[in-house]
Amino acid sequence: MNSSMTIDQCPMSWVGDWAGRRAALTPDRLALIDASSNQSWSYAELNQAANCLAHYLVGEGFEQGDVIALIDGNTIASILLFLACGKLGLILAPVSYRLAPAEMAALLERIHPKQIVTVSAYVQQLEHAGIEHLILTSQLLSAVEPQSPAPDCNRALPLEAVCLYVHTGGSTGLPKICRVTHRQMIWNAIELLVSAPEGLSHRRELLLFPLFHIGGWNTLLPVLYGGGCVVVHDGFDPNTVLALIERYQINHFGAVEAMLNALVDAQNFVGADLTSLKSITTAGAPCSSSAMAAFFDRHITVTQAYGLTEAGPSNCFNSPQDQGITELQNQTDTIGTGFYHCDHQIVDPNTQQVLGRGEIGELWLRSPHAFDGYLGDPQATSARITQEGWVRSGDLAWEDDQGKLRIVGRLDNVIVSGGENISAEEIEQVLVRHPDIQAAVVFGVADLQWGQAPVAQVTVKHQTSEASIRAWLDSRLARFKHPRVIEFVDHLPLTGAGKLDRRAAQRSYEEK
Amino acid sequence: MNSSMTIDQCPMSWVGDWAGRRAALTPDRLALIDASSNQSWSYAELNQAANCLAHYLVGEGFEQGDVIALIDGNTIASILLFLACGKLGLILAPVSYRLAPAEMAALLERIHPKQIVTVSAYVQQLEHAGIEHLILTSQLLSAVEPQSPAPDCNRALPLEAVCLYVHTGGSTGLPKICRVTHRQMIWNAIELLVSAPEGLSHRRELLLFPLFHIGGWNTLLPVLYGGGCVVVHDGFDPNTVLALIERYQINHFGAVEAMLNALVDAQNFVGADLTSLKSITTAGAPCSSSAMAAFFDRHITVTQAYGLTEAGPSNCFNSPQDQGITELQNQTDTIGTGFYHCDHQIVDPNTQQVLGRGEIGELWLRSPHAFDGYLGDPQATSARITQEGWVRSGDLAWEDDQGKLRIVGRLDNVIVSGGENISAEEIEQVLVRHPDIQAAVVFGVADLQWGQAPVAQVTVKHQTSEASIRAWLDSRLARFKHPRVIEFVDHLPLTGAGKLDRRAAQRSYEEK
Repeated sequence: MNSSMTIDQCPMSWVGDWAGRRAALTPDRLALIDASSNQSWSYAELNQAANCLAHYLVGEGFEQGDVIALIDGNTIASILLFLACGKLGLILAPVSYRLAPAEMAALLERIHPKQIVTVSAYVQQLEHAGIEHLILTSQLLSAVEPQSPAPDCNRALPLEAVCLYVHTGGSTGLPKICRVTHRQMIWNAIELLVSAPEGLSHRRELLLFPLFHIGGWNTLLPVLYGGGCVVVHDGFDPNTVLALIERYQINHFGAVEAMLNALVDAQNFVGADLTSLKSITTAGAPCSSSAMAAFFDRHITVTQAYGLTEAGPSNCFNSPQDQGITELQNQTDTIGTGFYHCDHQIVDPNTQQVLGRGEIGELWLRSPHAFDGYLGDPQATSARITQEGWVRSGDLAWEDDQGKLRIVGRLDNVIVSGGENISAEEIEQVLVRHPDIQAAVVFGVADLQWGQAPVAQVTVKHQTSEASIRAWLDSRLARFKHPRVIEFVDHLPLTGAGKLDRRAAQRSYEEK
Repeated sequence: MNSSMTIDQCPMSWVGDWAGRRAALTPDRLALIDASSNQSWSYAELNQAANCLAHYLVGEGFEQGDVIALIDGNTIASILLFLACGKLGLILAPVSYRLAPAEMAALLERIHPKQIVTVSAYVQQLEHAGIEHLILTSQLLSAVEPQSPAPDCNRALPLEAVCLYVHTGGSTGLPKICRVTHRQMIWNAIELLVSAPEGLSHRRELLLFPLFHIGGWNTLLPVLYGGGCVVVHDGFDPNTVLALIERYQINHFGAVEAMLNALVDAQNFVGADLTSLKSITTAGAPCSSSAMAAFFDRHITVTQAYGLTEAGPSNCFNSPQDQGITELQNQTDTIGTGFYHCDHQIVDPNTQQVLGRGEIGELWLRSPHAFDGYLGDPQATSARITQEGWVRSGDLAWEDDQGKLRIVGRLDNVIVSGGENISAEEIEQVLVRHPDIQAAVVFGVADLQWGQAPVAQVTVKHQTSEASIRAWLDSRLARFKHPRVIEFVDHLPLTGAGKLDRRAAQRSYEEK
């Protein structure tokens, strides 16, 4: 290349053509199955459908860089829309249908889409929130069943072209909108491909993560890139999921811990035929060993993965390496190490010095799948990613002697009590190991004497007492980390992404 | 990323660490086998050896960007040296031992290495040519067997860091020296990985291409990247190769057509147990169907691949897709289509207009695995690669209705006769289909009447006559393309890379 232009800036025809390039390699392989209709698409058919939809969008006046917002579940239409947008250099902005109409309206105002696509179920509440000029996904789908096949209408794009706006959960304020490039999603797919011992072409994946978070795209796109097959299903009902695994001979899915627990607790779990299922990837938050155990018992590998929208999302994983399941069973508390193309380091959050093994600091990540910044927020962007390409994860972690990483908690969740840094998650992890506790959330509250003090809310499996819990903590946790208050509650608040919502718990406590 | 620095320019620790990153994923898998000693290395052992060698190089004062020239065969030492150089950001410049001492000296003067590494067999001729201060690979190897393991000494490098200087054959003048970056070799490895239906971790590869050309590195590095195993063997004796396939259960190798012919003609071919061998990739020049047939008969896939040092080298390949061997048997004359991440177009060499399907023009290639330019020759670089990232292949080609590419010949080998463009290779291809002709070379000579005229030299399988050959041409080739002279010769001259040497043939004809 000449020095004035790097390859990231040079438009290439393959960049946005996720559908066409795989179709050129393996046209007849199965790409997608819609579990709701049992309809399936080969790669050639998927590419053909994406071309039809792209032609329709061109006809409707969409131009490179235009933004289409999408409010829908995990549907084939959502996937086709992404593939068509990729061919044309349009940006897809999936918006969580779990948001309240006012939150949706505020988010859409910031995204500023040329068009909003949704399904009839959401039209009324969207219009009620003042969001108009909606088109329905059914209208798009009618464009993809033409009488004559559409010619390829793919455009050359630079790797730096944005393909998705992905909003974060917004648990700590206004949701942030991440500019996700094709480069990010391609390198992310490469990460999963190079670390998959058997490649991805025999992958039969069940898509459970929602497509309005990065986890959905991280599940879908690497499998399409590698030539496997994704079974698309909307919603999460544990007994339905167990049935789908059996019906479609699913060999892998990704899930958060709460989903794994729900599957194990489901009525049909013991009787379900899970012989096709070889492995599960957990992500979103560290997964407890108890949630993995029932799958290990059935010889299913459970790989703990870690990443963030801003940096991956495939950043770290506890690879089974050459020793298989036993190795994982003995190391359920680690997120492993960086993916092939992802560097990591532990940094003192105050001094910015790189720390050695065994020391707790903020986990920083550097890879070609870093995001392109927050939409309209250069200040937040430069606070998140350094000049040298390091993304600050906001997570506290440490690295053991074998180079395995352990997440301690969020830097944001550090409770400063009497000058000591206490991680909310560290206390939670000790609490949930108590035999009678099901789940726990810890947060800091103002304390006249110490500045802040930790408070815990717990749900229980069996009846227990505060005294029992305090006795449990005595031998396991330094006294200054003990919660000032331990509350028994019926359930813990979760964020839209299914993570513990410490802010909501804190608010519920303070409002009492 | 901030706008001032792209990810290609941002140093990352994984970039040069080919040994360490794969070792982190699959430490215990077999990486290399030395066929000469039967010694083998796991990925952990390979990384350890590369670290030892890197420490030795640091101790000897080598610094990032320094160049080490290497004159050696396909040996473990050569591979370890590449891996150690990668960790430190040094540049390895393998120089063909087939060059005459004076050619070597001239090439080394242009490469300007800080150090030249070789084996004792070449020392005398190198010193005779005035090349001094040599160190022996045996000296390097003594550094990799220390008593205590060496800590990792990997350095962060940008993707744009040069890892190899690879010289071309120089059949059309002075050899050109290509600056090959880690980016090029990594994306090239990604190409092979994403197009390998079963991944590369079960690959048991026999390395036959020499490491002083890009083909050797293109065979080695993708397999190491994907976690497979490479059997390293120096030299090419057909019966030895057949024995190695059996002994090491080789399932893939790459070869030029001449090697395939030599294997088929070898005494032991019929009796050799080739059941482990699943596929062969041919490259270097279009491969005839006759050379492939004996392998198809034994249910071995033969994939024709195409590429150049400046653009890949994995640019196009005739993938068996979903239909397997039958599909390939019916299409032996095509190089298929571009790899996943490689764009191509056919361009009129005079007008630079992009041509449609069916039209013959120059093949242009665009991908993230383009080279970084010719060493010390910006003029040749900008003649080869456009501002938009297109590498001019110098090959004439056309694309059929199914999008499959066919190489017609070198743009350089066009003979302009009476105002008509005639491709030397097109004539050769018609000649070698004559039942009695074994091989043919065609070149242009000065002609008073037509400006230039084609001349052919042929070797024969069975006795034949010029009249028989001319009768054969009559029905198959326009009259103006017929060779003015057809010479029967005992053998045809080949380049160091095993390709037909048309310039040498032309000289031998003109010197008569």
